[in-house]
Amino acid sequence: VNRPAPEVLHARAAWSRLAEPGDTVAGALVASLGPVEALSWLREVAPAIRCEEGVGAAGVPPSAAAQLSAAARRWLPRLEALDPVRDLGTLERLGGFILVPEGPGWPTGLADLGAAAPLCLWVCGAPRLDLLLDRSVAIIGARACTAYGEHVTAEVAGGVAAAGWTVVSGGAYGVDAVAHRAALASDGRTVAFLAGGIDRPYPAGNARLLRALADAGGAVVSEVPPASVPSKVRFLQRNRLIAAVSRATVVVEAAWRSGALNTAAHAAGLLRPVGAVPGPVTSAASAGCHRLLRSGSAVCVTDASEVLDLVGSIGTDLAAEPRGPQRPGDGLSLELRRALDALPVRRPADLDSLARAAGLTESEVRSALGRLELAGLAARVGTGWCRTNVLIVSDGTGQV
Amino acid sequence: VNRPAPEVLHARAAWSRLAEPGDTVAGALVASLGPVEALSWLREVAPAIRCEEGVGAAGVPPSAAAQLSAAARRWLPRLEALDPVRDLGTLERLGGFILVPEGPGWPTGLADLGAAAPLCLWVCGAPRLDLLLDRSVAIIGARACTAYGEHVTAEVAGGVAAAGWTVVSGGAYGVDAVAHRAALASDGRTVAFLAGGIDRPYPAGNARLLRALADAGGAVVSEVPPASVPSKVRFLQRNRLIAAVSRATVVVEAAWRSGALNTAAHAAGLLRPVGAVPGPVTSAASAGCHRLLRSGSAVCVTDASEVLDLVGSIGTDLAAEPRGPQRPGDGLSLELRRALDALPVRRPADLDSLARAAGLTESEVRSALGRLELAGLAARVGTGWCRTNVLIVSDGTGQV
Repeated sequence: VNRPAPEVLHARAAWSRLAEPGDTVAGALVASLGPVEALSWLREVAPAIRCEEGVGAAGVPPSAAAQLSAAARRWLPRLEALDPVRDLGTLERLGGFILVPEGPGWPTGLADLGAAAPLCLWVCGAPRLDLLLDRSVAIIGARACTAYGEHVTAEVAGGVAAAGWTVVSGGAYGVDAVAHRAALASDGRTVAFLAGGIDRPYPAGNARLLRALADAGGAVVSEVPPASVPSKVRFLQRNRLIAAVSRATVVVEAAWRSGALNTAAHAAGLLRPVGAVPGPVTSAASAGCHRLLRSGSAVCVTDASEVLDLVGSIGTDLAAEPRGPQRPGDGLSLELRRALDALPVRRPADLDSLARAAGLTESEVRSALGRLELAGLAARVGTGWCRTNVLIVSDGTGQV
Repeated sequence: VNRPAPEVLHARAAWSRLAEPGDTVAGALVASLGPVEALSWLREVAPAIRCEEGVGAAGVPPSAAAQLSAAARRWLPRLEALDPVRDLGTLERLGGFILVPEGPGWPTGLADLGAAAPLCLWVCGAPRLDLLLDRSVAIIGARACTAYGEHVTAEVAGGVAAAGWTVVSGGAYGVDAVAHRAALASDGRTVAFLAGGIDRPYPAGNARLLRALADAGGAVVSEVPPASVPSKVRFLQRNRLIAAVSRATVVVEAAWRSGALNTAAHAAGLLRPVGAVPGPVTSAASAGCHRLLRSGSAVCVTDASEVLDLVGSIGTDLAAEPRGPQRPGDGLSLELRRALDALPVRRPADLDSLARAAGLTESEVRSALGRLELAGLAARVGTGWCRTNVLIVSDGTGQV
């Protein structure tokens, strides 16, 4: 794989500072002209834009010119202060690097974002982010999670990571942090997508965790350049990246209104499977998960194997069907079942009365008793028949 | 409405003793010939059947003759001891009565069972069972329910009953009993369907509860005649009645294998809505509910209004969409949101730097500030601008 030319890296680094995350006009322009040429175009048309003139660009239809001019007017205030070489230098001092669609390491899932794909990614950690995210699950949820949420997050993220899947999350307190930590504890890989610059870990209390996960073969990733603050809008845009790079998104705990639901909506919009972990209906921290289940936006998942079931292929990652213990009488035909039901526990009954009790003919009862005797469930007592297994009586109501 | 002729009542009472619940051959024969004529036919062909000869009946195609002969051989052992007048007398002494499809009070939902519909119903309580069940929800679940299950059952059943809906259940310990009790406590109506005869309340510990619900305008119902024992097979057949007479079935708590799942499957097969209440994934008592949710067999329901949402008509019973508290910044356009995000909390910023921070043009920022100021979210400080609302900063991460 070829390293992209330095001017491509510089131009994309510049674009990631000019345009806010999710700016589809910038995305379309860069895709259409190329990042270097799009930047040259912007410098050329800057004087005209400052004079409030309309502008056009090669490959942009005239019908989109007004939209392009409006977008360009938003980029201009940031054009003069632009210094991608300085930004890349800051990143290098952190031990980081940028990834671009033209080079290796670009996560394949981002292509589904179209013009809303990030213009570049600022990364600390593993260079082949694409390989790291090839088998990945986003595990996200409330910052204000409960002890129950922490427990389930640790179980699910730990199990997913132990199965060789990368755990993607947002580096926040609560579910995010527990998910990252559980993946590390399972010797697994985990990737954090931040809403601000990767040089300013947010929240600061998770700085050590973020460094640890980058050092452990994972990565800390952002689409905004160093020193960028994590604003509300950037958090919402960051969520689309988590949804796009992961093969599935799982919400462990989320209040009725929660950023995690925004990520889930992005994932559903990108046709990625969404899972939600149920919880007590008395817990506000699970209300968002139940909302997803109720609307049919998410599948109910209760453990790591069911999460892998969302993404896995049959025979490799599929969850084993959990089963209760076998009980006497399982798998009997209706006829045998009725004969067994009719058998008294204490006083033996004769064929005649068993037939009446079971609603069967005498010959059916005789044949059933033979098979039940072979199965150790019926016994001859004198001229009559009894049950041998009292368990069935105490548990024979059909309600467990 | 006309009372059915006594011989029809006697014949159906007889048939309910001859045939086991869910015997579709008996159902089809009685529907085809009429209950009185079907009984006469059986008495006529009895000698031939005893001689192992094949029999036919008017309206039964020759291709079904073998099936009919086999079924008749099962009815015969009970034919001699038949005494419907005695059974009806037993019932009368209990203050009960029977309902038949030919008379008033027959629940309309039973028609969907086709030939598997009960041959009659033995009832203590309200004579117009049809009206009682017209607006009804089955609330069922584990006998071995948890404190959580009891709490949620009481909330849901109490709310459903208070809204004027009848609570249907199976009279068992656990969820069933709590559902019946909560309905009574809400001055609502509740109906118990038993697997055995209504003269032998099962479990005996719920005898007082069953009497109380019949006295309070509800009913205790069974399709098997007095003195019949509640066998495992009869419990499973009883479940089809609960599913058929209720407009929806809700499972509150159920283990991975539970009779409640059988009822839910009957309801789904009858195209009745099924709801499941989620619970902690760490609780085995909720595993069956999660199984229903995961397979898509049930809708997630968390309170009485969501249960009524399963059955109600828009505008009358529909659940109000729960909403979190409103927050400053709700409903702002993306542009206003970005300007608000860019506004510093302490040191005022000028238009120029706000435009760069927000990724907007200066004129967009100017217009946004004016509107944010009107909304009380931004304030002029000297030549610059600040936020007025610090709440947004502490809660502005998009993750709640």
